[in-house]
Amino acid sequence: MNTIQITTPSKNYPVFVGPNAINKLHSVLRNLKPSPKNLLIITDENVGALYLDDVQQAIESSYPYEVIQIQAGDDQKSFENYFACQSFALAKGLDRTSVILALGGGMIGDLAGFVAGTYMRGIRFIQIPTTILAHDSAVGGKTGINHPEGKNMIGVFHQPEAVIYSTEYLSTLPEHEKRSGFAEVIKHALIADQNLYKMLRKNICTIDDLKGEHLLQALIRGIEIKNNIVTEDEKEKGIRAYLNFGHTLGHAIESEVRYKGITHGEAVAHGMLFALSLKKETAHIAIELKKWLNTLGYPPLPKHLSIPSLINRMKKDKKAEKGTIQMVLLDRLEKPYLSSYEAEELEEKLTCFFEEK
Amino acid sequence: MNTIQITTPSKNYPVFVGPNAINKLHSVLRNLKPSPKNLLIITDENVGALYLDDVQQAIESSYPYEVIQIQAGDDQKSFENYFACQSFALAKGLDRTSVILALGGGMIGDLAGFVAGTYMRGIRFIQIPTTILAHDSAVGGKTGINHPEGKNMIGVFHQPEAVIYSTEYLSTLPEHEKRSGFAEVIKHALIADQNLYKMLRKNICTIDDLKGEHLLQALIRGIEIKNNIVTEDEKEKGIRAYLNFGHTLGHAIESEVRYKGITHGEAVAHGMLFALSLKKETAHIAIELKKWLNTLGYPPLPKHLSIPSLINRMKKDKKAEKGTIQMVLLDRLEKPYLSSYEAEELEEKLTCFFEEK
Repeated sequence: MNTIQITTPSKNYPVFVGPNAINKLHSVLRNLKPSPKNLLIITDENVGALYLDDVQQAIESSYPYEVIQIQAGDDQKSFENYFACQSFALAKGLDRTSVILALGGGMIGDLAGFVAGTYMRGIRFIQIPTTILAHDSAVGGKTGINHPEGKNMIGVFHQPEAVIYSTEYLSTLPEHEKRSGFAEVIKHALIADQNLYKMLRKNICTIDDLKGEHLLQALIRGIEIKNNIVTEDEKEKGIRAYLNFGHTLGHAIESEVRYKGITHGEAVAHGMLFALSLKKETAHIAIELKKWLNTLGYPPLPKHLSIPSLINRMKKDKKAEKGTIQMVLLDRLEKPYLSSYEAEELEEKLTCFFEEK
Repeated sequence: MNTIQITTPSKNYPVFVGPNAINKLHSVLRNLKPSPKNLLIITDENVGALYLDDVQQAIESSYPYEVIQIQAGDDQKSFENYFACQSFALAKGLDRTSVILALGGGMIGDLAGFVAGTYMRGIRFIQIPTTILAHDSAVGGKTGINHPEGKNMIGVFHQPEAVIYSTEYLSTLPEHEKRSGFAEVIKHALIADQNLYKMLRKNICTIDDLKGEHLLQALIRGIEIKNNIVTEDEKEKGIRAYLNFGHTLGHAIESEVRYKGITHGEAVAHGMLFALSLKKETAHIAIELKKWLNTLGYPPLPKHLSIPSLINRMKKDKKAEKGTIQMVLLDRLEKPYLSSYEAEELEEKLTCFFEEK
């Protein structure tokens, strides 16, 4: 078992990563002060069917707990489910000592984290991620829900008490979910660790290679990179923005297709290719990355995307300021920087990018 | 003009109090870094009709701004209005540099603060309170909305950039709103400043006396007391709980009548009388306070209140822990402390209290 200590200005907490990390849950709960009156497990129906029993066993009947299962899917990170969780928590008598367990992927982590961050103005929560993608969302304290007009538009920063990353839970992930999470690993490698990037390119030749020691290393380094950046910039005023590499276009694509037919990471993969293509110094990286992604089964751009609509969505991105669009580009591997574009200019570039596809 | 500097672990900000304090708005905005792309004024229809023009003039066309007016009333601090404000902010293109102006009483401050605290995971806001009650809610960073099952159950801690308290806005307050706010002033005096308590008892003989220099002193001392307590305990783990004096029963009464027919402070006044009656050392204070409150026109307890329902609501209070009910009592003036009651015991005491009324 590996333990990564996350240090933030507002809180420090451990991330336990490895096979059977879930066995740490009981001691994590036992060390909480004040001791929780009760627990609320928030999970989705897919994950619940597979791993809820396991988590319940790990609690060992030491604490009373309640379970709310919501439908699976990123579009479930909605106001309706947020309200439903709050109502459930109130009906079950959660108080300020209670603890929420977020059992699931990034959607559950974000939703449950936002519920925890705002229930009675903030109670504690523990992340139990079940996807590769969650290596990204489980670190940094970002929580939130989608608004029909934009992804993650409503939320708070709220740090968990611990993250328990039991890697055996990743074996049942569908391939597109593996690709989704792996895109964020690639992002972390591109912006901060060229050795990791090289190791992954060498060893991950099909999506099935993403297991065992290679997967563990990818997760650990991904978490460490994210942590290093977040530690330096908890409230996203500066370098944290680099984590948004590939996300400006990625988010716009996801919104445009209403989160159907393409996963978050698959959309971000297109965003990274676009960002790399914007500079001649990184165009060759875009070309080799594109080949590799194709081999790994990443899907092509969704059909019938409207470029003006995408640009409009990019203008509404949280990173946007006063009408211009902020993009993260790379000077070269490990050297991200922020670049500001006028909408018209970026629309031209995006048109070229789409034509080359 | 008086300036009170509020110091919290997460932020420092000024409270400007006095006639025409609104004239400070322009310089407050000008000093913000980064400069706001645009402003969103959140107000209610009553306040908007009276003071929106004034605030718009104070902005001096230096910044583009949008206005959303919601219905007046504490029951408007709802999920529906929260969502409506978020949608409006997105539709009007607010970004992370934008600033929300909360123009109104505690309801608007809480709602607009929660919108600001969660829009894109937190943007800046400025409080422009228009009630006496807001001297309390404008300091401390508490924001939130009501859930049908409980008041202020959902929210975050989010500190404003500044509070601009233009006391001429208080002259149009209806009497019951003056009583509501004045109850919190009395609370601050009872828990922390017996000289203030004596000054008020001497000088405020009818609710109309609450103006000019006496009102200004009441507001300033109220803000200072609250600030002192909050500074020592931003996240409400210890002494901040003393501010809840009178609120455990007060909140239960408000919920039970669904926030109709009695104001927040009027309900808290009953809560303070109940808390003072629980100890023989403070019973005489309860008697003299009750006489004074009657003279000032505070209303009697609402009819047909169900004591078991009130107790049930008190058990759901955010301060409640593991089924017991936390009450703030006074040893004597200026000496608050926390006392834990079993529900059955408190039900008996409440029954006696109701019979004596």
